[in-house]
Amino acid sequence: MTIPSIGVTSGDPGGIGPEILIKTLAGAGALPPAAYIIFGDPRVIRSEEERLGLRLPLGEWRPGDSAEPGVFLSAAPGPLEDYRVGAVSAVNGEASFRAFEAAIGAARAGRLAAVVTAPVSKAAWALAGHAVRGHTEYLDRLHPGAIMAFWSDRLKVALFSHHRPLREAVEAVRADALVDFFRALHRGLGRLPGGPYRLLLAGLNPHAGEDGYLGREEAGDIRPAVDRAAAEGIPVSGPFPPDTVFLGALDKKDTVAVALYHDQGLIPFKLVSFATGVNVTLGLPFVRTSPDHGTAFDIAGKGVADPRSMEEAVRLAAAFSATGS
Amino acid sequence: MTIPSIGVTSGDPGGIGPEILIKTLAGAGALPPAAYIIFGDPRVIRSEEERLGLRLPLGEWRPGDSAEPGVFLSAAPGPLEDYRVGAVSAVNGEASFRAFEAAIGAARAGRLAAVVTAPVSKAAWALAGHAVRGHTEYLDRLHPGAIMAFWSDRLKVALFSHHRPLREAVEAVRADALVDFFRALHRGLGRLPGGPYRLLLAGLNPHAGEDGYLGREEAGDIRPAVDRAAAEGIPVSGPFPPDTVFLGALDKKDTVAVALYHDQGLIPFKLVSFATGVNVTLGLPFVRTSPDHGTAFDIAGKGVADPRSMEEAVRLAAAFSATGS
Repeated sequence: MTIPSIGVTSGDPGGIGPEILIKTLAGAGALPPAAYIIFGDPRVIRSEEERLGLRLPLGEWRPGDSAEPGVFLSAAPGPLEDYRVGAVSAVNGEASFRAFEAAIGAARAGRLAAVVTAPVSKAAWALAGHAVRGHTEYLDRLHPGAIMAFWSDRLKVALFSHHRPLREAVEAVRADALVDFFRALHRGLGRLPGGPYRLLLAGLNPHAGEDGYLGREEAGDIRPAVDRAAAEGIPVSGPFPPDTVFLGALDKKDTVAVALYHDQGLIPFKLVSFATGVNVTLGLPFVRTSPDHGTAFDIAGKGVADPRSMEEAVRLAAAFSATGS
Repeated sequence: MTIPSIGVTSGDPGGIGPEILIKTLAGAGALPPAAYIIFGDPRVIRSEEERLGLRLPLGEWRPGDSAEPGVFLSAAPGPLEDYRVGAVSAVNGEASFRAFEAAIGAARAGRLAAVVTAPVSKAAWALAGHAVRGHTEYLDRLHPGAIMAFWSDRLKVALFSHHRPLREAVEAVRADALVDFFRALHRGLGRLPGGPYRLLLAGLNPHAGEDGYLGREEAGDIRPAVDRAAAEGIPVSGPFPPDTVFLGALDKKDTVAVALYHDQGLIPFKLVSFATGVNVTLGLPFVRTSPDHGTAFDIAGKGVADPRSMEEAVRLAAAFSATGS
């Protein structure tokens, strides 16, 4: 039996990433069988282990070997002479960027089936001179058309657009772009187990435009795009009233709600799946998941961070790796 | 002891309004003590009673008398020679409009403390020649600044804007209009029991603009408006990231989340409070509530409509009338 190799980055050394990673992998015996490879600075991992009173049985990762179950370390030393917990800094940003870059490089070279990323600080990346606004934007540059999606037992959501001002997100709702998106999403979902997935599309306007009284995008762009995609065999329907479409997708394993902008999808997702939701990037040649929360600098170093979302991200990466890529 | 007089309209005769009204008032003994006065066509009420096998002990309403507990009828005959259940029609629209207008007239004349409105069809109103897009717009014309809010045990939400295209809703986010809104909302909430209410404001953009990276409305208009209102003693804070602000308001009795556009508020509200949520209009000289669903023509006349939201609307009207107006 072949088991997958799954990279796990440690995130910003000043945030809760190292803590939730160690808490999760300390219970590796209860996780799906895989080689879990930590990408991070060994000094940060050791220091956080001491703080938590946990010790991971870390083997050294040798990517050439056939994978064996266990927890391994791929050292990605950062310039961490004086890293600080609980704050944004350039050294922390440089460290989390290097670890992420190393993991993605290994995945693109085919040595990892999946990468799970702990939270980073975009502000710290900027201080370190990396002009990219987060994991998903970095991946989107390497693999244009990467899709941000969110996954939990109760609700699955894919975002047509994510990190842009609402005003721009409204402008971006055009028929051609929507059709391209439906194709990429359907293709990305097709590589996951549990499908085929049906897509329920939210409208842009209240009541999905109410026959044009409350907006024209539904008639002008959205409905034509759905018709074109459906004619190609993509199982997409809508646009539905945004305030009830997520109820329609709730607790349905094979249904993904499609949101046209960031908060349309994340408001319902976080309400239903807070602390257990997983961020999934679709459309890559490998699986990528991450917890759906940030660095939480305010509680870093206190040992109180909730590792559930990280654990779910690791479990989902393993589940998707079973048939993915 | 003085008990309140509460008007209850029967809604579109072709929808589920008459059914949920009769189901609710048939249990009037378990409702707060009040005079519940039905505004509707007696023929519709009698016909629906027969269908349901329920009979309300209807007294005739004499508005001059001091109110006694019970269920009364204020006949508002519609042109209902041939009304049809389960469909949009001009006769149905005319009937529901007349009943609503009669109830609002009685409330504005001081004869009712509250009006509970069963669902109407805006399309039927339009067919009947009434160029007003629903209850709230009608009330907003009579009392400019009327505010649409949603109320349940779990979540309370007020909407800065409601029935307008998203593109226009974004344009409407201006400092002066926001300050006026906070004042009106604070005033309206001040007349309700259970306060004082604290206001948690959602941002417009993802992550509330993330320091300008994801939109400028927060810095340019929203934050200045919050500062001005707070300086006047209005307990408003924010703007908070839209995808977590509703979690912050959840299960807090004295907290109202403020949404900047229709779906920002209604997506979380319907997800959390479906079937038990109540629509409340604030800023009127009387209390007005209604169930948070529509006419449901598809299930009308079948006896299967869920009356819980209507019952909650009646209970809330009674609770608010205790100290309101």
